[in-house]
Amino acid sequence: MKKNKTIVLLSGGIDSATTLFLAKKQSLTVNALVFDYGQKHKKEIRFAKQIAKIAKVKYKIVRVRMPWSRSSLTDKAKKVPENFSDKIPSTYVPGRNIIFLSYAVSFAESIKADSIFIGAHTQDYSGYPDCRKVFLENFNQAINLGIAGKAIKFRYPLINKNKKEIIQLGLKLGVPFEYTWSCYNGRKQPCLKCESCRFRVNAFKQLGLKDPLLKNKK
Amino acid sequence: MKKNKTIVLLSGGIDSATTLFLAKKQSLTVNALVFDYGQKHKKEIRFAKQIAKIAKVKYKIVRVRMPWSRSSLTDKAKKVPENFSDKIPSTYVPGRNIIFLSYAVSFAESIKADSIFIGAHTQDYSGYPDCRKVFLENFNQAINLGIAGKAIKFRYPLINKNKKEIIQLGLKLGVPFEYTWSCYNGRKQPCLKCESCRFRVNAFKQLGLKDPLLKNKK
Repeated sequence: MKKNKTIVLLSGGIDSATTLFLAKKQSLTVNALVFDYGQKHKKEIRFAKQIAKIAKVKYKIVRVRMPWSRSSLTDKAKKVPENFSDKIPSTYVPGRNIIFLSYAVSFAESIKADSIFIGAHTQDYSGYPDCRKVFLENFNQAINLGIAGKAIKFRYPLINKNKKEIIQLGLKLGVPFEYTWSCYNGRKQPCLKCESCRFRVNAFKQLGLKDPLLKNKK
Repeated sequence: MKKNKTIVLLSGGIDSATTLFLAKKQSLTVNALVFDYGQKHKKEIRFAKQIAKIAKVKYKIVRVRMPWSRSSLTDKAKKVPENFSDKIPSTYVPGRNIIFLSYAVSFAESIKADSIFIGAHTQDYSGYPDCRKVFLENFNQAINLGIAGKAIKFRYPLINKNKKEIIQLGLKLGVPFEYTWSCYNGRKQPCLKCESCRFRVNAFKQLGLKDPLLKNKK
């Protein structure tokens, strides 16, 4: 039987790696799409490649530049924050998922894939607006009015999960978390202070586990 | 009084040049966004720069690559067609306007622009699905659910016009059509055979005018 094709947005972090393994489990032919968008933690791309290799999945790396962005995730002059509030943080990159999903749509239409997986979830990551379900639903409807091929379905299986639940799911699926990178600072070791590190550290702690990335001393 | 900011998608053709001059006439502070997407008629970018210069408008050039695209507009192994049918032509680039508009949204949000102009129209260009009003309306609604800043309004003032009407409007606005490029083949002279040339040639003919680009022997 011919397998249905899908695209998975793969960043190299816990969420997208788990999403990739979920898509694989559903017997889909997975094509991973990895973005080099000038992130300071460009290191995550290396991890994304490693994950794709382990999962035996083909990947493409797309270079995206948003020279107008003043996000602390891409602007070297700005420090990644270590204090948090209810406001949208300086790590927010305007239009990031809008652009990433648009490339995925172009790719999906070209190779006749009928779905796109994204590991977005609203409970973590400070409520980035482009991770919200309402956005994903509406964006999905809109793009189907702008393509010539068959309809594409966005799939966001983690949308209602928190980091702890995602790790639990990933462990069941056999995701090699030692090959995932979360820290917004792309140094040798995770900083353990940025928002992304904190979510990760807390989730493993809640599960009574040691983060396999730290064990490995990568 | 502080002028409202807008983004104009500028390709270097008749439609986007006219749209740029329309936006200027509305006393908006215009930022043009030009895309290098591997088009064979990359030459249009030079024309876009020239138009922006004449209109005294700042521009940014964004490099977009869709390595999966098999469009005859980007694939050197494919010939740009000279025969036409009701089908979507081989010049269609999957997701092109979806990607272009996504970059414009990121740019607009970053510089606090409140609108994005696109010269799309349905009567020409063989009904590319990403030029349709229904797509633009829905895509506009969707992106406003995915951004953190104020709402952005898409503006497509040419949507119901044909090429002849667009040229008429452009002439009133003083658009220097001698600095616009339409031909899908980026050779020294327009081929006069591709779909884009034919629309242009016919429109000037209907108006009883000689195309100023041909006069100039550029």
